[in-house]
Amino acid sequence: MRATVQTKEIRDAILDATDLLLSRYGYKKMTIDDLAREVGIGKGSVYLHFSSKEEIVLSHIDRIVERVKEDLEKIAASKASPEVKFREMVLSRVLIRFDNVQHYTESIDELLSSLRAKVIERRKQYFREESEIFAKVIKEGQGTGIFSKGNPSEVAVSAVFATNSLLPSSLSTQELGERGHVRKRAIAIADLLLNGIKES
Amino acid sequence: MRATVQTKEIRDAILDATDLLLSRYGYKKMTIDDLAREVGIGKGSVYLHFSSKEEIVLSHIDRIVERVKEDLEKIAASKASPEVKFREMVLSRVLIRFDNVQHYTESIDELLSSLRAKVIERRKQYFREESEIFAKVIKEGQGTGIFSKGNPSEVAVSAVFATNSLLPSSLSTQELGERGHVRKRAIAIADLLLNGIKES
Repeated sequence: MRATVQTKEIRDAILDATDLLLSRYGYKKMTIDDLAREVGIGKGSVYLHFSSKEEIVLSHIDRIVERVKEDLEKIAASKASPEVKFREMVLSRVLIRFDNVQHYTESIDELLSSLRAKVIERRKQYFREESEIFAKVIKEGQGTGIFSKGNPSEVAVSAVFATNSLLPSSLSTQELGERGHVRKRAIAIADLLLNGIKES
Repeated sequence: MRATVQTKEIRDAILDATDLLLSRYGYKKMTIDDLAREVGIGKGSVYLHFSSKEEIVLSHIDRIVERVKEDLEKIAASKASPEVKFREMVLSRVLIRFDNVQHYTESIDELLSSLRAKVIERRKQYFREESEIFAKVIKEGQGTGIFSKGNPSEVAVSAVFATNSLLPSSLSTQELGERGHVRKRAIAIADLLLNGIKES
């Protein structure tokens, strides 16, 4: 048990250091040596947790998506109306990602240039998991009669894809500086989708 | 006049060769020498039209988007109902791009890894121009009373952004092999948006 906790702590410390060093050096210049020094452990200890720099950065992205999913679950389980939940969930998935990369907007481009194929491959699972949480709320709204019938999973997938172009990987460095704009655009799409989902 | 026609013809021949060589070699390996040989002109002649390989490939992408815009204008000017036009336009912007990169799905990743920042920068204008055509159709639907009121330009921007995640730049190589899936997903989002736009 204790060992597991420690493992998780060291893993998290490495990912925290990754976050810091991505903003300081960018993906290409950051080394495992830098990471080990920042955490205060040996280089070998880093390799006990991760096999490569690539795996570390992908795990760092995974962790951001974990935060998104936790927040989506929290909203889905809240007492708000399905309509409010849906809007909040769209904002959550767009803005948590946005806020988590705010300190290294410049190096996102470099990171994605290096890891594009792997990141795109990984997103499939992220999107599927997020869709499942959306489906629960859509089902709930159908149950109370405020959302129209239709396959909740399919509507959920559409909702996720309809807001994917607002995620950091699709934004320019300039757009990553414009939180208000991105937020406004997310709300506009969420409301248009809600209009489409609601029972008329 | 004659000179202008020739200029356009040579430009187009260079871009046609680019299309071919991207599928044969990929972006990094393709050279200006290869392009000149393929067109049957001197390397210097290529440089009369374009300043660099980068500019050639960006112009090649521009040309695909020009085809999309022409098709959108054609649909917008047709006699179909605004609802049918809207759905067709969503499919057009997704599938024309899809079909135009079908023969080099493997090298898209490499191309975008090299030109990501420039492509993303350029897309702003593409999306604005496409939104303007969508806005015309939305306005038309509002005029006949089948679409609900609201700023047509804002609804148009939402419609464009809601389907941007289905463009080749956001798809994995595997997804670029699944035309039927991408088409189905585009229709699902278009219908959800239409539900949201329609006067209830």
